Amino acid sequence: MAVRVPLGFEIAGVTAGLKASGKPDLGLIYSPYPLAWALASTDSLVKAPCVSRNRARYTSRAAVRGLVVNSGNANCATGDRGIWDNEDVAGAVAAALALARVQDMLTASTGVIGEPLPVDKVRAAVPELTAALGEDSGAFAEAILTTDTTAKQVAATLDKGGRVLGIAKGSGMIHPNMATMLAFILTDVDISQDDLRALWPGVVQRTFNQVTVDGDTSTNDMAIVLSSRQLAADKETFAHSLEEVAARLARKIARDGEGANHLVTVRVSGARTGDEARAAARTVAGSALVKAAVHGADPNWGRILAAVGRSGAVSDLANIRIALQGELVYQGTVQAFDRQALSTRLREEEVLIEVDMAAGENVGEAWGCDLSPEYVHINADYTT
Amino acid sequence: MAVRVPLGFEIAGVTAGLKASGKPDLGLIYSPYPLAWALASTDSLVKAPCVSRNRARYTSRAAVRGLVVNSGNANCATGDRGIWDNEDVAGAVAAALALARVQDMLTASTGVIGEPLPVDKVRAAVPELTAALGEDSGAFAEAILTTDTTAKQVAATLDKGGRVLGIAKGSGMIHPNMATMLAFILTDVDISQDDLRALWPGVVQRTFNQVTVDGDTSTNDMAIVLSSRQLAADKETFAHSLEEVAARLARKIARDGEGANHLVTVRVSGARTGDEARAAARTVAGSALVKAAVHGADPNWGRILAAVGRSGAVSDLANIRIALQGELVYQGTVQAFDRQALSTRLREEEVLIEVDMAAGENVGEAWGCDLSPEYVHINADYTT
Repeated sequence: MAVRVPLGFEIAGVTAGLKASGKPDLGLIYSPYPLAWALASTDSLVKAPCVSRNRARYTSRAAVRGLVVNSGNANCATGDRGIWDNEDVAGAVAAALALARVQDMLTASTGVIGEPLPVDKVRAAVPELTAALGEDSGAFAEAILTTDTTAKQVAATLDKGGRVLGIAKGSGMIHPNMATMLAFILTDVDISQDDLRALWPGVVQRTFNQVTVDGDTSTNDMAIVLSSRQLAADKETFAHSLEEVAARLARKIARDGEGANHLVTVRVSGARTGDEARAAARTVAGSALVKAAVHGADPNWGRILAAVGRSGAVSDLANIRIALQGELVYQGTVQAFDRQALSTRLREEEVLIEVDMAAGENVGEAWGCDLSPEYVHINADYTT
Repeated sequence: MAVRVPLGFEIAGVTAGLKASGKPDLGLIYSPYPLAWALASTDSLVKAPCVSRNRARYTSRAAVRGLVVNSGNANCATGDRGIWDNEDVAGAVAAALALARVQDMLTASTGVIGEPLPVDKVRAAVPELTAALGEDSGAFAEAILTTDTTAKQVAATLDKGGRVLGIAKGSGMIHPNMATMLAFILTDVDISQDDLRALWPGVVQRTFNQVTVDGDTSTNDMAIVLSSRQLAADKETFAHSLEEVAARLARKIARDGEGANHLVTVRVSGARTGDEARAAARTVAGSALVKAAVHGADPNWGRILAAVGRSGAVSDLANIRIALQGELVYQGTVQAFDRQALSTRLREEEVLIEVDMAAGENVGEAWGCDLSPEYVHINADYTT
């Protein structure tokens, strides 16, 4: 899918030869303008050099000019060498673009952990990469994928013509560890860096952090928003569009979980706080038992109730309500429902689990997928 | 396996007809003496009536005389009716044993959530149950099982003849939710209730709470230790035996996880605190990716490293060491090892993962199992 990037951006994706498959594996986002930006990244104590480098740059509060990303190799757990290799890639791209400072080029990597990054291949591909810069995001969206089955792009246009384009790769993990979620959102809306940084943590918390595929947090996870500040827009309108794009990307990531056949949306209402609503939704979406039940089209409300119980979110147990595909199955006690008919509806591609905690006014959503035997096969049988 | 119970106990197991299979499903532990006891139970906010009732009794600090347990039905999420049904079972047994107080009989249930307990069947079986009381624990150990493939008993004898007998059921969960781990430890060692209650939380924390099969905490989990106080023993010797029995039971539960082919022991050393060591061990043992790798005999140290990183436990990344089946595979960077030979060794029934955090002096263990396609099949295909 070729999507035009927002104003003030150029984008490219090429093949550097990092992936055995020969598919595109090197991507570049560039702007002739200083970009306002905001970053969210993994909380793991094991962080790839690209994550640590971007975080250090982030604290400087300086604008950047772009981002280079490779797939096929996470450049993580590669010792001191990994730090220099990462810097080397940024330097090669910054030089090719004649940037004044190498720090103006952010980096991201995703793929196998623990193998040295083939820097020579990357350097050799940089001329082709910068030459390929243009308006279409399609090749970039391909170049950041690992085990994803489809590229993931979402675009929105605001009233006054400003645009928001999100590009992501998701979420299943595979040997020796896919280092996993990358999300990049580009906008030409004129928003200050301070405003962007104030917005971003909440957006990420309600969207990308509510995706669960297998509960394994990665070493390379990053979500970055970049603004070229070309077009005026109402701040609230922009905030709404940004969150909408992020949420739609998050759902695409969940749907494309390894071995997944269903997108599972868990919608919690009636919680005491937003945090509790989101925690309950995540716990339900992340439960191996709930995920296996969805795979088997089993209207298994007991597992949902048990997951809510262990989430730590307070609920009014006598009045808690659980609905599957819109059908009420539990309200204090089990409700009468046609098990066979509901099972048939659970075979639909999208499965909706609704939980009313009956304890307050707050809502939260999480997105996941079913747990299939294919997930185990994909993750068990890689190297041997 | 028929094991003689410690002095001052009688035990029985019979078939009340709660299980469709017709296997034993009603068990009783009884003592003519007041029993010192300690309880650990699920932290889930959704608790079965038996859990709430035992916890209330626990706060009274009074001694008890025994415990009645049924399998085949968790009597959970059954509304107010479940509370009275649970009380009814305790009352029927207390009456048959001519106990002065119904509160002297603890209760436990495990099995399907959300279906009313067939109290009439239980009441009808009580005369047979009390008549069956005797010294052999075998029928009781059978009567508490749900999806377990084997009964789980561990016994230890102290120097001076005191005994510790542990009986448990584990750990996989199945539709609409098996409410899951029950562990009962009986001893004739003379230990005061205060001492027992001081010991028990730490023992449970280091043993039963370090078992992970699918990460789903149950609504009915309980671990109870009961002492008839018949034989003098050194307190430290007893504490050691108690923990040893609990740890061996915990490993049996992990080994018998649904669809499991391997017992996985994760041993963390060099942690800053015991809590961090145990948290890191649990996170590794609970990782779906690590579990799938073990199933595939894949020496996938990257997933172990990523799990340690997200556990929150601090490690010295440059010096962290990971060994599989005793073979060092990672120390700051990947080590040279024979992948094929190590994969062959990972096909052994017991898999040992060792992580040296290189950050302190503390150790912790956790036990889990592999993630197999059978787990998904068992948990996906129950009702439809």
